[in-house]
Amino acid sequence: MKEVHHKLLVEEMERLTIDEFRSSDKLPLCLIVDSVRSLHNVGSFLRTADAFRIEKVWLCGITGTPPHSDIHKTALGAEDSVCWEYAPSTSQLIERLSREGWQICAAEQVAGSTMLPDFPFDSQARYAIVVGNEVMGVSQEAVDAADCCIEIPQFGTKHSLNVSVTAGILIWEFARRFEYAHRLKR
Amino acid sequence: MKEVHHKLLVEEMERLTIDEFRSSDKLPLCLIVDSVRSLHNVGSFLRTADAFRIEKVWLCGITGTPPHSDIHKTALGAEDSVCWEYAPSTSQLIERLSREGWQICAAEQVAGSTMLPDFPFDSQARYAIVVGNEVMGVSQEAVDAADCCIEIPQFGTKHSLNVSVTAGILIWEFARRFEYAHRLKR
Repeated sequence: MKEVHHKLLVEEMERLTIDEFRSSDKLPLCLIVDSVRSLHNVGSFLRTADAFRIEKVWLCGITGTPPHSDIHKTALGAEDSVCWEYAPSTSQLIERLSREGWQICAAEQVAGSTMLPDFPFDSQARYAIVVGNEVMGVSQEAVDAADCCIEIPQFGTKHSLNVSVTAGILIWEFARRFEYAHRLKR
Repeated sequence: MKEVHHKLLVEEMERLTIDEFRSSDKLPLCLIVDSVRSLHNVGSFLRTADAFRIEKVWLCGITGTPPHSDIHKTALGAEDSVCWEYAPSTSQLIERLSREGWQICAAEQVAGSTMLPDFPFDSQARYAIVVGNEVMGVSQEAVDAADCCIEIPQFGTKHSLNVSVTAGILIWEFARRFEYAHRLKR
């Protein structure tokens, strides 16, 4: 006979308060959002960033910023916990973060991109992942400024994941390889 | 000096035609969608299912089905490649698939759920992942019918990923552990 397991109540989830979140250790990982149009996607990025406690979300170009009711609908308050900042030019931001020692990885299908499982991950590095516009992807300018391009292998008819899903898979995969459990105390 | 890499043109992506997709090998993986309200999420599931060539998407309960313009907006045609079917009762579907030899894993935070990295994956098994409603999650009835519950570890203030992101991370992680490259010929 199968055991029956009750779904966790909110108070059983050991969620951090906003103050605890802000003062807690973060994964050395940023998300750079290059001109994403949908505010629902922005909200979803912030929620994923909250879940995996990444250092910062950069909202660039035409990407909308909090406070906005459409962002709140999918961020569900993560816009108040996650550190975010607006930057007008994605490529100038990339150049600045690069000088500051971040490794910049654009999520884009380019000639010579590295398939995600083959990416030579370095647990001592700090990474910034760039995701792009829903239709255009990451701009060529941002691709050129980045250190490398990472591609999620795809096997179907479209080769085009939703950008929130792309960010989710990449953040999960980087968190996994960073051995988050050792870095993020509960 | 950095090399400049051009973004791949659609014709360089080696995308399958719909006929090629339908006759191609699939990962032994299904997605069961338990009463998801948003048609954008349904479209996103289909797009992810297309990308990783999973066997089938089951749309259950109040979940909407193609054809629908809001599903098409996020599925972008994946509703025509991916095998999908509607089932009124998630728990009855789970019982049927279970009898047919599928291992059923609900994506839910329950007492005694298995953290994703600790899941004892068996590359010889066939898996069906259950994702649930945006607010309620996977129903208790479906949780009870499933073989196990898998939880994506989360470290922030919310402990609630967007359901499209949850499905994306789980499908990616199962595809990775299935060693998709050996199973899915390009």
